[in-house]
Amino acid sequence: MIKSRAAVAFAPNEPLKIVDVDVAPPRAGEVLVRIVATGVCHTDAYTLSGADSEGVFPSILGHEGGGIVEAVGEGVTSLEVGDQVIPLYTAECGQCKFCKSGKTNLCSSVRATQGKGLMPDGTTRFSYNGEPIYHYMGCSTFSEYTVLPEVSLAKIPKDAPLEKVCLLGCGVTTGIGAVLNTAKVEEGATVAIFGLGGIGLAAIIGAKMAKASKIIAIDINPAKFDVARELGATDFVNPKDHEKPIQDVIIEMTDGGVDYSFECVGNVQLMRAALECAHKGWGESVIIGVAGAGQEISTRPFQLVTGRVWRGSAFGGVKGRTELPSYVEKSQKGEIPLDTFITHTMGLDEINHAFELMHEGKSIRSVIHY
Amino acid sequence: MIKSRAAVAFAPNEPLKIVDVDVAPPRAGEVLVRIVATGVCHTDAYTLSGADSEGVFPSILGHEGGGIVEAVGEGVTSLEVGDQVIPLYTAECGQCKFCKSGKTNLCSSVRATQGKGLMPDGTTRFSYNGEPIYHYMGCSTFSEYTVLPEVSLAKIPKDAPLEKVCLLGCGVTTGIGAVLNTAKVEEGATVAIFGLGGIGLAAIIGAKMAKASKIIAIDINPAKFDVARELGATDFVNPKDHEKPIQDVIIEMTDGGVDYSFECVGNVQLMRAALECAHKGWGESVIIGVAGAGQEISTRPFQLVTGRVWRGSAFGGVKGRTELPSYVEKSQKGEIPLDTFITHTMGLDEINHAFELMHEGKSIRSVIHY
Repeated sequence: MIKSRAAVAFAPNEPLKIVDVDVAPPRAGEVLVRIVATGVCHTDAYTLSGADSEGVFPSILGHEGGGIVEAVGEGVTSLEVGDQVIPLYTAECGQCKFCKSGKTNLCSSVRATQGKGLMPDGTTRFSYNGEPIYHYMGCSTFSEYTVLPEVSLAKIPKDAPLEKVCLLGCGVTTGIGAVLNTAKVEEGATVAIFGLGGIGLAAIIGAKMAKASKIIAIDINPAKFDVARELGATDFVNPKDHEKPIQDVIIEMTDGGVDYSFECVGNVQLMRAALECAHKGWGESVIIGVAGAGQEISTRPFQLVTGRVWRGSAFGGVKGRTELPSYVEKSQKGEIPLDTFITHTMGLDEINHAFELMHEGKSIRSVIHY
Repeated sequence: MIKSRAAVAFAPNEPLKIVDVDVAPPRAGEVLVRIVATGVCHTDAYTLSGADSEGVFPSILGHEGGGIVEAVGEGVTSLEVGDQVIPLYTAECGQCKFCKSGKTNLCSSVRATQGKGLMPDGTTRFSYNGEPIYHYMGCSTFSEYTVLPEVSLAKIPKDAPLEKVCLLGCGVTTGIGAVLNTAKVEEGATVAIFGLGGIGLAAIIGAKMAKASKIIAIDINPAKFDVARELGATDFVNPKDHEKPIQDVIIEMTDGGVDYSFECVGNVQLMRAALECAHKGWGESVIIGVAGAGQEISTRPFQLVTGRVWRGSAFGGVKGRTELPSYVEKSQKGEIPLDTFITHTMGLDEINHAFELMHEGKSIRSVIHY
């Protein structure tokens, strides 16, 4: 049992508390990781708000981290002490029906227990004053030391800068992957990206990598347009500047609609707009944002019968253990400008300030350095 | 100007009246066709009911025909007198943005005027007592003589039996094409087909052609199951036999859901069920049925984010002029058992009876022989 500094969510909608928790050693198939840096993501805020039906408390949030292997449990063969790793909220076991299908990254191996805030054996490694603290998304990167299943860790190059590539553990990979893996945007295609938070900006990078001919960036906060332009967006739309529905604006700009659209907010009305601005006959719309519990999308079926396709993407369709290392390498080569995302860095003590900056729309990503 | 026997829809929700209408000669780019046989489809009934927002009256319905070219207008080069043809409600011009894309069969060349019941030059070739009668879906096969744009006619082999292959002008091709072209069902896949009318039964044929491993036929009328079995369905579900939602029944039957599902009714609740019974991670659902005006589909976005795909299909994604002839040839080789669909044949005078049989669920297809 070791002590670890951690930001604990003791109850919904309360600031995180920085305390020293107890971390039990890794059991069979598990790995102890020392987190070096972690991003703070909207999904952490969503769960902290109490709106997440899977949210359990007290828990240690955080799922966008980078760390170093400190100890391995029995039977762990693919990782050793000293390896650099990125925690994965979407595991990759290589053995389940989903992994074997070759068609999806949604590994089911640890899904059931992960959703309950537990390790695969149904217990938790964290405790505070003898009371259990739950895990979160299988990662809990808001603790300096955390325990994960071996299948939930991507091994990355030892020279990768963890305080930057930690962002590849969620938002940046999600946005780029949705464009490259899920939609498979081809050269010359037109693209609309709804919402210019971290995921939307990453989707712009993906669209530029795919050599899209037109990349339309859409946000009600025009302050986001500068960084969108820097990353490759070619056109900019603020829905507040238009009286007509935003889908009609996009359709007019593009002679009938875009080839691909991406919803990066989690707003079900925007999901509909994103579908309906896709071109008749072939336009595809990808939902990336996470909607509030119980909310539904809707449209007239005619939109689909006339050739539009509606799909979604989780972690950008990226298989964490086999594919994430190549994203790290791309960032090391400068193809993924992670620095652009990191607007703030701070110590763990200031993590509640990171949430404030996010809520105020002042940050793209705050990165916590332990 | 020639006289033609026709079943005219003078007003919504009234029986068709058999009268002799006047048919003007084909103008430039147009073709006069003598219809030999025509199926009666649910879409005809839908428009006749007055629910179709594009429906105009008086008009000559019918869009599932087979005929012989009687005369060609100026500039028509691809057809000559005596050719056997199937009228196309989805034209194929080869020149428009849609045709040139190679991604869709939704040719736009005659769409605007067709939707208004007019020929491409904005006029009508039909009249009765000097008053214009509108065209319908660009076909109007309930008239023995009809005029169509050249781009709206598929030339088929001269030995094809028109009183059978007329059904390839709509329902049968729509069902088979949705499976083979739109969903691209692969060998060994599991398939659920919602609704066992003409289109659903045709989708079963398509699934069998694709060598699906399991073909689940779903209908609230179990009398449809015998013919579904004959065509290749392997499993049968009557939603009335189950208390739980039908998507849950299918998910249990298939260890997580089907690889592909098809909605062949036009019921928006069933469209949702069809999506939600598709397998997490890769299941695709195709909407074929036409919903009532203004109705909407809905689901939780989580269904898409976890890997399901929602799409639709019009005329089975089949490009009429270039691809329909191969369907005719398949039917001539016995690969598409059209006889199974033809439960009733009758003369034009009895066409209102064909509508009654359809409303009562007693027919798959009635074919009118002129």
